[in-house]
Amino acid sequence: MIRVKVPATTANIGPGFDCLGIALSLYNEIEVEEIDNGLIIDIEGRDEEKIEKNENNLVYQSMLKTFQRIGYQPKGIKIKQYNRIPIARGLGSSAACIVGGVMAANGLCGKPLSTEEMLELAVEIEGHPDNVTPALVGGVVVSCKDEGQTTYIRFDVHEALKFIVAIPEVELSTKASRGVLPETIAFQDAVMNVGKSSLLVAALMSGELEKLSFALKDRLHQPYRIKLMDSLENIFTRGEDLGLNQLFLSGAGPSIIYLTWGEEAEKEKKFYHIIKEAPEEWTFQVLAGDNKGTSIS
Amino acid sequence: MIRVKVPATTANIGPGFDCLGIALSLYNEIEVEEIDNGLIIDIEGRDEEKIEKNENNLVYQSMLKTFQRIGYQPKGIKIKQYNRIPIARGLGSSAACIVGGVMAANGLCGKPLSTEEMLELAVEIEGHPDNVTPALVGGVVVSCKDEGQTTYIRFDVHEALKFIVAIPEVELSTKASRGVLPETIAFQDAVMNVGKSSLLVAALMSGELEKLSFALKDRLHQPYRIKLMDSLENIFTRGEDLGLNQLFLSGAGPSIIYLTWGEEAEKEKKFYHIIKEAPEEWTFQVLAGDNKGTSIS
Repeated sequence: MIRVKVPATTANIGPGFDCLGIALSLYNEIEVEEIDNGLIIDIEGRDEEKIEKNENNLVYQSMLKTFQRIGYQPKGIKIKQYNRIPIARGLGSSAACIVGGVMAANGLCGKPLSTEEMLELAVEIEGHPDNVTPALVGGVVVSCKDEGQTTYIRFDVHEALKFIVAIPEVELSTKASRGVLPETIAFQDAVMNVGKSSLLVAALMSGELEKLSFALKDRLHQPYRIKLMDSLENIFTRGEDLGLNQLFLSGAGPSIIYLTWGEEAEKEKKFYHIIKEAPEEWTFQVLAGDNKGTSIS
Repeated sequence: MIRVKVPATTANIGPGFDCLGIALSLYNEIEVEEIDNGLIIDIEGRDEEKIEKNENNLVYQSMLKTFQRIGYQPKGIKIKQYNRIPIARGLGSSAACIVGGVMAANGLCGKPLSTEEMLELAVEIEGHPDNVTPALVGGVVVSCKDEGQTTYIRFDVHEALKFIVAIPEVELSTKASRGVLPETIAFQDAVMNVGKSSLLVAALMSGELEKLSFALKDRLHQPYRIKLMDSLENIFTRGEDLGLNQLFLSGAGPSIIYLTWGEEAEKEKKFYHIIKEAPEEWTFQVLAGDNKGTSIS
């Protein structure tokens, strides 16, 4: 039996739309084995009732594509998923299923694919590298896709960073979130995001964490996406008024992360407070960065 | 007598419009002293005939503003400039005059201003931080200005990097170069620049130099600016055809830099070749990064 442990991920961090992702210390675990015939899927944990347990299951689909790439035909497959990453909340649950499935299938075949080959396949299945790359290799990942080619640079998440994740009990599809983005934007907004994202990468890499609050502001996607849900708009407006500059939408939302390094307890309290004022039910996860990525045993 | 040595700088590097600058190993030197009365300015070196030797001189103007900030009134000033940085070619000659003047005046007063205070003043005089920051502190500088506040992160230029600078014998004013920039751009172009600039910073910082050729492409300013001069457009088109991906406009142009780390001698030759085909006269400078910034003695 192969066991795989995959981290949650946050992407589109502040100004780093479509290029910046970080692996987080919240994990799904997957156990797979080859059986004599058929498909058995068993799921335990968060949002288990929402996940298909048939041939459409994303872990299974990703395993199948990996078997095809390798040229292996299993007799039957048994999958057990222990889920902690909520679904459709902007925390990389799809990427975790894909990366988990690819690595599990590769493991069942004796690991013929390299990390880079698994990554290429996972990006193909997911369509973009933002979440699958940090899910696979851990850490902070800066990635860019141009003319079909993806290049990325990975470095460790600073150990002092704390991600306070607020997760609402409502879903927001990536498709809806993509739909609200404009076709053109003001040149000055583009320039601002280029500068902020560059500074954000430099701050994360150099450990000059005190510069994060200046660097995290975005004009490219968040102003449009928060309009999809009243609470998001309220929370961001209140957050700005209260000086909570390290607030950002995780992925395509609707989860919100307040990024801190433990020095501003007052601001953390304010963050909890404004989230609790929202009408929906929200849960919190206080996470660290994950620097290991997906592990197999 | 105070002697100051200020490096040239390149800014707007590829996708890093308005936020990324690097100090280069080409220097202006300035000697200043307080005299009994009047103003004496003597200039030697590159473009000396183009520089005003009266009260409008930029080094002198920057010294005056520094004296005002400090609250000092010199009797008279003598300035000697030894110039190597060409004027109005996108290599930070104004920033060098400003930073040189500020540091020289501060030196004459016994250095009351800190580096940060000198930087603030120099940014005020220049209007933006792109060139003055690396000129003062050396290295690679990622800076961003938002609501009047500038934040920057500095790190060393990798020692293997070589900047082949091609300088045409024609000027291009920053004003003209700013004038051709559009008011809005396609969302996808903005996203591409955010990704490339973030990756470029990560590559420069981590030393993963092989990723520079992927990271240096720009859609925000170069496509518009190269249209200001036929040669620029030809050189960039030919460069793209020949796979010279590390080609970028220095500052607002018209100088062009080919960034390399000594592993692609064939491509360097191609760069020299396409520059020499242009109708204007071009000179070359092969420079390293400067990690010291402005020094005073």
